[in-house]
Amino acid sequence: FDTFSCPGISSFLRENKRRHDMRKVIHSIKVGVALVLVSLLYLLDPLYKEVGENAMWAIMTVVVVFEFFAGATLSKGLNRGIGTVLGGGLGCLAAAFAQAVSGIGKAIVVGIAVFVFGAAATYTRQVPNIKKKYDYGALIFILTFNLVVVSGLRAEQVLELARERLSTILMGFAICVFISLLVFPIWASDELHDSLISRFEDLARSLEGFSKEYFENVTGKENKSSANFSSCKAVLHSKTKDESLVNFARWEPWHGKFGFSYPWGKYIKIGGDLRDLATTILSLKGCLRSPTQSSEGLRQSVKEPCEAMISSLAWTLRELGESIKSMRKCPSEDVVVPKLKSVRLELSLVVTPATLGTNLENAD
Amino acid sequence: FDTFSCPGISSFLRENKRRHDMRKVIHSIKVGVALVLVSLLYLLDPLYKEVGENAMWAIMTVVVVFEFFAGATLSKGLNRGIGTVLGGGLGCLAAAFAQAVSGIGKAIVVGIAVFVFGAAATYTRQVPNIKKKYDYGALIFILTFNLVVVSGLRAEQVLELARERLSTILMGFAICVFISLLVFPIWASDELHDSLISRFEDLARSLEGFSKEYFENVTGKENKSSANFSSCKAVLHSKTKDESLVNFARWEPWHGKFGFSYPWGKYIKIGGDLRDLATTILSLKGCLRSPTQSSEGLRQSVKEPCEAMISSLAWTLRELGESIKSMRKCPSEDVVVPKLKSVRLELSLVVTPATLGTNLENAD
Repeated sequence: FDTFSCPGISSFLRENKRRHDMRKVIHSIKVGVALVLVSLLYLLDPLYKEVGENAMWAIMTVVVVFEFFAGATLSKGLNRGIGTVLGGGLGCLAAAFAQAVSGIGKAIVVGIAVFVFGAAATYTRQVPNIKKKYDYGALIFILTFNLVVVSGLRAEQVLELARERLSTILMGFAICVFISLLVFPIWASDELHDSLISRFEDLARSLEGFSKEYFENVTGKENKSSANFSSCKAVLHSKTKDESLVNFARWEPWHGKFGFSYPWGKYIKIGGDLRDLATTILSLKGCLRSPTQSSEGLRQSVKEPCEAMISSLAWTLRELGESIKSMRKCPSEDVVVPKLKSVRLELSLVVTPATLGTNLENAD
Repeated sequence: FDTFSCPGISSFLRENKRRHDMRKVIHSIKVGVALVLVSLLYLLDPLYKEVGENAMWAIMTVVVVFEFFAGATLSKGLNRGIGTVLGGGLGCLAAAFAQAVSGIGKAIVVGIAVFVFGAAATYTRQVPNIKKKYDYGALIFILTFNLVVVSGLRAEQVLELARERLSTILMGFAICVFISLLVFPIWASDELHDSLISRFEDLARSLEGFSKEYFENVTGKENKSSANFSSCKAVLHSKTKDESLVNFARWEPWHGKFGFSYPWGKYIKIGGDLRDLATTILSLKGCLRSPTQSSEGLRQSVKEPCEAMISSLAWTLRELGESIKSMRKCPSEDVVVPKLKSVRLELSLVVTPATLGTNLENAD
């Protein structure tokens, strides 16, 4: 009964944990540096003379757009840019239209425009697909449209104002992109890749933990097993995180050997399959907890094929994880399937109704 | 074999669906109205004379703070308020300290303050517990601190500026709270309550669907069963949504008969138990899919007790859901436990090793 342990994956997981903590520190320092850079617009006199009070918008952009993952920063920045341009453009049109009306009618036109565009954009934000990808863009659209259309009534040079603000927003965005993507970048695609790989290992360990507890020390403490199952539960609740990471990863520049057509959709699919598997493994917990346990005799009679089966499954999971990790076709494809088939055959020979019946009778 | 169907819960679910769609429209209209109200600061001359360009901050507050659920609006607004006050206060202190230094040292002090506070607050934002509740507050803290400390170098009357901005932010927040809480409020607590109740019904249906498929039409199409299991899967993935709803619900004013000490923690716990149950039910899917099915004879011999067991379980789930719905102690508590116990006893009599062995032998 060999556990087929992969020292490669274990050390990879440890390394991963340490790197995870480091990343938080790196991200904080990067935000600090970006803030100092953008503050130079205020601090250096020549720059301040150029942009003036509008430097505020650059600071705001950096604070709001700089996210942990490079893909998230890009996605938020582009959303902000598109929202600002669309909102500003439509706002200018609406303001020009309102200028054509005289007297109190002007304010009424503005009020109606604010209501209609605000309500429509808010409704759009609640459509699941738009909410997932363009929520922030819609928010910025509402904000910019509203600011432009109401200040269009007061400021004569609304186009000038819009141009200046847009340019400072672009400055802020440029600083974010530069620091986020070029200085110790933290890729959502790496995070997704690593978390998927580590889930294969988690499931393999849960399976082995179950087999150990069920067949070897039934009377042992429950602590160890529940720890095993908790990582299995974490796999089960990975859906939301996966989806947002894929969302960010799509924005990231090419990565690995797949170029721009990286198959992110497959990560969602594999994640879903792993969750199904985790469901099955978790349901085994019922066997450990159940007050009516099968007799020692029956247990011993299925022990050997079950253990062989579980160790093959764990080995297969690790092979699959390893092949995804190194992004190569699973070399043991020709080995894995026949191996699993033979183990299943062996198991089904032991657990036919006839033998099981006999064993049950004996055990009784 | 009675399905114990509850017309009460079914119509409640339909009604719920319709109400769910209506709420999106209501929310959009409410946002539109709030935007028009806050735009009045620009549109009405007397108001504009009072606040001037700072009206911009009121509009920004409404756009950013107005969320779907009343609790979310309150939480975001309070976060924004606290973040602004803290960031503004510390920013003023740092700016005053920088004023005391002369020449180029001033800019250096400001730069260091921006870096240190920005990086520290960003690190804090990544602590899970703070991220969950105060992420937005920390973001606003960074933004305000930065704006105040850098503009403190330029504007002489930084305190005056801070006071004016804070008062317009308060106006925006007041409009949000007024419309969000008093006009057709959408409570996160109601949403949490309803979604928890409907999950009991979903699980009961999944169980019944499984029993029907397994015992009645084994050769039927798989469509129906997979539809049943998909609602079960939805229960499995409810964790993230539950946690954010509880987070919002805590901010909402008293509600129902529990007052301010509403036991929201219990909702998380019950949700977790339902997810465990959903895991077990989903693992039953394996029985339907498995290529090695037990014989018709064995199946018929356990059919009756299994069906009785499943219908009792479904009935119990519905009773529990109903009692949570009406917020009363489950009246059938004295009935439920003995009923489940007797069904389990009955089942264990049929499925002892001895009888099962005999049945298996016969079936073979």
